[in-house]
Amino acid sequence: MIQKHCGKSSVRFENRPRVLSSAAVGGKKEAEGPLSEAFDHLNVDTKFGKDSWEQAEREMQRLALETAEQKGAVGHGDLDALFAGDLLNQCISSSFTVRDTGIPFLGLYGACSTMAEALLLAACAVDGGYAAYAAAMTSSHFATAERQYRFPLNYGGQRTPTSQWTVTGAGCMILQSGGDAPFIRSATVGAVCDYGITDANNMGAAMAPAAYHTLRQHFDDLGLAPSDYDLIVTGDLGTLGRQIVLDFFERDGVKLGSRYNDCGCMIFDAKKQDVHAGGSGCGCSATVLCGHLMREMKRGKLKNLLFCATGALLSPTSTQQGESIPGICHAVSFGTERR
Amino acid sequence: MIQKHCGKSSVRFENRPRVLSSAAVGGKKEAEGPLSEAFDHLNVDTKFGKDSWEQAEREMQRLALETAEQKGAVGHGDLDALFAGDLLNQCISSSFTVRDTGIPFLGLYGACSTMAEALLLAACAVDGGYAAYAAAMTSSHFATAERQYRFPLNYGGQRTPTSQWTVTGAGCMILQSGGDAPFIRSATVGAVCDYGITDANNMGAAMAPAAYHTLRQHFDDLGLAPSDYDLIVTGDLGTLGRQIVLDFFERDGVKLGSRYNDCGCMIFDAKKQDVHAGGSGCGCSATVLCGHLMREMKRGKLKNLLFCATGALLSPTSTQQGESIPGICHAVSFGTERR
Repeated sequence: MIQKHCGKSSVRFENRPRVLSSAAVGGKKEAEGPLSEAFDHLNVDTKFGKDSWEQAEREMQRLALETAEQKGAVGHGDLDALFAGDLLNQCISSSFTVRDTGIPFLGLYGACSTMAEALLLAACAVDGGYAAYAAAMTSSHFATAERQYRFPLNYGGQRTPTSQWTVTGAGCMILQSGGDAPFIRSATVGAVCDYGITDANNMGAAMAPAAYHTLRQHFDDLGLAPSDYDLIVTGDLGTLGRQIVLDFFERDGVKLGSRYNDCGCMIFDAKKQDVHAGGSGCGCSATVLCGHLMREMKRGKLKNLLFCATGALLSPTSTQQGESIPGICHAVSFGTERR
Repeated sequence: MIQKHCGKSSVRFENRPRVLSSAAVGGKKEAEGPLSEAFDHLNVDTKFGKDSWEQAEREMQRLALETAEQKGAVGHGDLDALFAGDLLNQCISSSFTVRDTGIPFLGLYGACSTMAEALLLAACAVDGGYAAYAAAMTSSHFATAERQYRFPLNYGGQRTPTSQWTVTGAGCMILQSGGDAPFIRSATVGAVCDYGITDANNMGAAMAPAAYHTLRQHFDDLGLAPSDYDLIVTGDLGTLGRQIVLDFFERDGVKLGSRYNDCGCMIFDAKKQDVHAGGSGCGCSATVLCGHLMREMKRGKLKNLLFCATGALLSPTSTQQGESIPGICHAVSFGTERR
């Protein structure tokens, strides 16, 4: 047996699972944002023609899954495993989307880190020979998240300066063993990290330490440096959380500079779109990856990408009970070369 | 690369990941049940000395994890991956338990199927060389589950005849590559199955079709029959759900008989303990497996065990929106021989 485990918590994929296809679906605000052209489907109706926002979120996942399948010329029956999760209680967006598709399903909960968690597990499944095709999927919806985590929308609660705007979107990526670039080369599994942040409207600060630790672990475990990547993106830290990651690295004498960005800062135009500290939600990093970033890789503009989705593992109950907010971050490395 | 994928949705573990150790923790009702002797820790205080039931549930997971580690002579730092989830919104029992342990963490949501899902992913990680040690863990607590899914306990709502009693318990199992029996030999990933059951007090009926389909798939994919197992256990179908599985197989001309049982029927004495249709919750199948069943395997009383944890993927929101209850079931095969 080949030991593919590297360092404390990273894995190297010897068989280079490849990205067969990906799809990104978004709503109205995403259609107005700077990355709109990279989405496969955009709908200004945030109910996506359905009766409830919860049904709309499932409809986005269905569209993302079926579009990724079409682009990869595969069907439900070809998928050996689908790893998916979302923000709603009991992850109902994912499980209701896949019911009666017959796809072998493994439900995840990683909050907004779900896309990276799903991808690293799908990559292990394909690389290890446990699946010929494996898919990773997630979603979020501004209206379902607001009513579950914060207030009913019609209450009109005022948003704090550090609050972020939950992306209405779904992303799906299908991995396959063998074929052309882009490949998934390695991944780092994060640990749960809690720096004592208790402000449920400041997710960026709660998640930034986890992002920093996972990035450091990734570089240490695999003998890499930030300069080995054209672009390092975190999930949805927003403007404040992004600055904290830059500061952490600066203390270590490492200047990440423009090599580092955050999907929450990329998906919306913070000034024009009134999103305060930026975008958030599982759909934020998932749609930026499955849409914009994959397009950049296929166009050859990006050769080495480190995708680090970040999650805040709180619940309204934990907040009401006075608990602080644990964060997590998983990293997945994409490359166009087979090195 | 060896193709370890079998049939539609099963995997065979060539490198035979083994069970290094396991631990089961339970509360008052579990201490009064017929399997009490197989628990590692039992506490008649259902708050486990903590201030809230939510904290008590985490305390059970902490005890289960640390006891399994002690029994296996490993520490937090040895675990390359921990797969865990629970029933609480945003899976706070699992993520809060592992914060600041530094253990690489992969959060799951599979409702009461979590122990099987965690085990099959941990087995892939160890078998594939991605982890030297991987752990699977889950929990449930009667009081946290009742207040989240049904009514506040002090409301004193009457329970229907088909309702089940959520087990207060946590189970943890650590897998390792190489060593003595018991081994994990294969696993089958379930698909989400919805037969239109809408009664949130009849989980057994909602989950039974998923159990039947996963069992059939397991036998078909791997060329096995029920007679290849000494014991087949489902997760927490209870008396009604168990009967439905027996009926489904009977229609196929297969008599499962006493070879088949359900953890929800085993953990409590239904007549004496007033639990109506039996036990349920992630902790039900997890503690029966990590306590009683592993003891039976180590004593040589069980040689071939098929563990099929079942989950009902509903949420209070989906129920309020008039949705039916999707079910899922994953199967994990244990054996004492290296065949």
